Amino acid sequence: MSKIAHKIIVLSGKGGVGKSTVTANLGIALARRGHAGRVGILDADITGPSIPKMLGVRGQKLDVGLPGVFPVIGPLNTRIVSMDFLLPSDETPVIWRGPLKSMAIRQFLAEVVWGDLDFLLVDLPPGTGDEALTVMQSIPNIGGVVIVTIPSEVSQVVVKKAVTFTRQLGAPVLGIVENMSGFVCPKCGAETSIFKTGGGQKIAEELGVRFLGRIPLDPRICEDSDDGTPFILRHRDSPAATAFIEIVEKISGLVVSAPTKKP
Amino acid sequence: MSKIAHKIIVLSGKGGVGKSTVTANLGIALARRGHAGRVGILDADITGPSIPKMLGVRGQKLDVGLPGVFPVIGPLNTRIVSMDFLLPSDETPVIWRGPLKSMAIRQFLAEVVWGDLDFLLVDLPPGTGDEALTVMQSIPNIGGVVIVTIPSEVSQVVVKKAVTFTRQLGAPVLGIVENMSGFVCPKCGAETSIFKTGGGQKIAEELGVRFLGRIPLDPRICEDSDDGTPFILRHRDSPAATAFIEIVEKISGLVVSAPTKKP
Repeated sequence: MSKIAHKIIVLSGKGGVGKSTVTANLGIALARRGHAGRVGILDADITGPSIPKMLGVRGQKLDVGLPGVFPVIGPLNTRIVSMDFLLPSDETPVIWRGPLKSMAIRQFLAEVVWGDLDFLLVDLPPGTGDEALTVMQSIPNIGGVVIVTIPSEVSQVVVKKAVTFTRQLGAPVLGIVENMSGFVCPKCGAETSIFKTGGGQKIAEELGVRFLGRIPLDPRICEDSDDGTPFILRHRDSPAATAFIEIVEKISGLVVSAPTKKP
Repeated sequence: MSKIAHKIIVLSGKGGVGKSTVTANLGIALARRGHAGRVGILDADITGPSIPKMLGVRGQKLDVGLPGVFPVIGPLNTRIVSMDFLLPSDETPVIWRGPLKSMAIRQFLAEVVWGDLDFLLVDLPPGTGDEALTVMQSIPNIGGVVIVTIPSEVSQVVVKKAVTFTRQLGAPVLGIVENMSGFVCPKCGAETSIFKTGGGQKIAEELGVRFLGRIPLDPRICEDSDDGTPFILRHRDSPAATAFIEIVEKISGLVVSAPTKKP
């Protein structure tokens, strides 16, 4: 852990806001921005891991060697660790209660040979339960927490809880990302706010945290995730990819400029 | 519990597939179908409860009386129990590890005066962790489990786990609902598959479980959830509401015709 410069947690109170998609694309965007081979992604969603599928490394296994466990190498040399690499098949559910899930996460943190990294992104499962608590309490010097939401008001309620959770555990909130923000019809160009828009910005102002940006809905994000190709690489000129890159620039600016405290 | 005829669990491996929206609208659709006052909804998402907001009963409190705890009364006399009714404010996160969450769920099941119900719908948080395990193990004679997914392949991986989970715990799988299935541009009528379409049906065939139907994306579902008005009541003639009603008919047909086993 001490060889990792910046540890960033990606959190959402509510599920399905695209947290894993955001994590995967942020990781790749960071790698593209001069950090290739120096970005790690820890998929801390023990019961529903989806990072490997999105980055095209499903079915691979973690390599166990002398100093510990080696991450799977993904696009642009990202280092990826996920429960998915330990499961015998697609259908296998991980029916684990909290203490076992926490133990798995602690092992991922302690026994994985991450190497020298500029950034480690940790993708948490939704909610403020065992996995989130364990990650927040086990990682020293968290660079910051990125909170992902969709614009709907129902999601906003849960975002407030996520911000309070982060503050109570003493980690800096880097800001809020509003995902699935508006949809432009590919045929006629009309914009529809399927899950509304602007909710993320509103809640950020209300809670006094930074608004990192909005990412529009784009069917190609889902297609690329399903294909295991990072959207940000395949469709790098799309508005959504531009949004991802702007968010990455803000985040890396924030954590790199922050004073590093030693444990 | 013994006064509840049919207990139905709504499960999704992955978050944000609209599980709570589906649960809330199924509950209301059941109530409209001749079961008004005889439908209960247990929001078993302890850290991210959203049923109360969707059904317009946020800010209410559970009434504690002599025989136990009384549910909050929602639209069409539905009986609603949620962690949300016990929290002092919006921002309060529930930072609980598994055992505490399990205890809360067991109390909701044991100490709530549900009364005579035809249906109890239990809305689980995403994943196959503590809450899901506790609900599946604490409720006797589960009528069946409805699995909600979105069409993307990434979600399909997690659906497989949910089906295996349900089977391992010995509960009947009623079938799969494909939510957020296609979007029709309100301006030009062109259909876009934002999260693809047909994935739910494909996975249902692959796993040998029933496909219960698909619900299209409709921005009014999100608006109505935010307003706390059930979509199925306010927009009852929309294609999405029709889809909900067809699914409800299938589900109630399945559980009502199933042979009742006594514990």
